Amino acid sequence: MFNHKVGQQKLAHKRMASSTHPSAPCAACKFLRRKCIQGCVFSPYFPPEDPLKFTNVHKIFGASNVSKLLNEIAPHRREDAVNSLAYEAEARLKDPVYGCVGAISVLQRQVLRLQKELDATNADLIRFSSNQNMLTIPQSPGNYPQNPHALPPNYGNYSWNYNP
Amino acid sequence: MFNHKVGQQKLAHKRMASSTHPSAPCAACKFLRRKCIQGCVFSPYFPPEDPLKFTNVHKIFGASNVSKLLNEIAPHRREDAVNSLAYEAEARLKDPVYGCVGAISVLQRQVLRLQKELDATNADLIRFSSNQNMLTIPQSPGNYPQNPHALPPNYGNYSWNYNP
Repeated sequence: MFNHKVGQQKLAHKRMASSTHPSAPCAACKFLRRKCIQGCVFSPYFPPEDPLKFTNVHKIFGASNVSKLLNEIAPHRREDAVNSLAYEAEARLKDPVYGCVGAISVLQRQVLRLQKELDATNADLIRFSSNQNMLTIPQSPGNYPQNPHALPPNYGNYSWNYNP
Repeated sequence: MFNHKVGQQKLAHKRMASSTHPSAPCAACKFLRRKCIQGCVFSPYFPPEDPLKFTNVHKIFGASNVSKLLNEIAPHRREDAVNSLAYEAEARLKDPVYGCVGAISVLQRQVLRLQKELDATNADLIRFSSNQNMLTIPQSPGNYPQNPHALPPNYGNYSWNYNP
């Protein structure tokens, strides 16, 4: 009976070994000190050459949350998901208060400033054309109407005073 | 001896109770089913009236990571930090692949488009002023040089094909 148990354990270990990755374990499995089995959800997106990518994502979101998220996403969209998570994680580590929301604030202000500048330039153009008694404004390929309100949605009522 | 132990337990419980919040527990402590003690790191930012704020943040970042992050931030900056985390969490729940990085992509493209449009309009203005043999372009308050490259940094080498 004892020998049979040992035999079973050896067989299970052999099976486990045969289902691990033939190459080096992925950065996630290496960090989490576990076997990198075939079909590991992290393996395609966290190569061993880039350990920081996983460390950052794990520090901000937690490996368990990332694994859950990936399993809910279609395989062909997982790479984009991991890369956007890696971007967010790196931004949060560099700026613990605002993370990548800081970039959103900067861009929103930039869009509003550019829109204001464009409106002023268009007003100048109209003034010129009036002076020349022209009825139309010359159209350049770049001249099409802009919607200054087409900014990303404000989720919830969570506001912040972003002053970098 | 038994009675003495019971007495000690009662005293410990009494001490614990006296250090809990006088009002309702915060949304975090309610969700985590724990006592909301004085000085609870979540309490000022997760009021019981807005349970979703904590649920979202917990689902994406995990309560433990949020608690660690808050403890590393000066108290007067914690509200902004929590609100930016809540924004990110809500964006990730609405768009599991891109999260709020999707908003960054939209804004970056909007900035580039506006800059292109502004360049074209400025070129039209120059053309007008040349036709009128004017040496200068009328300056409006909005006309100041823009740097089209002043976009948020690209963290790491993580790219994504954002096609909403």
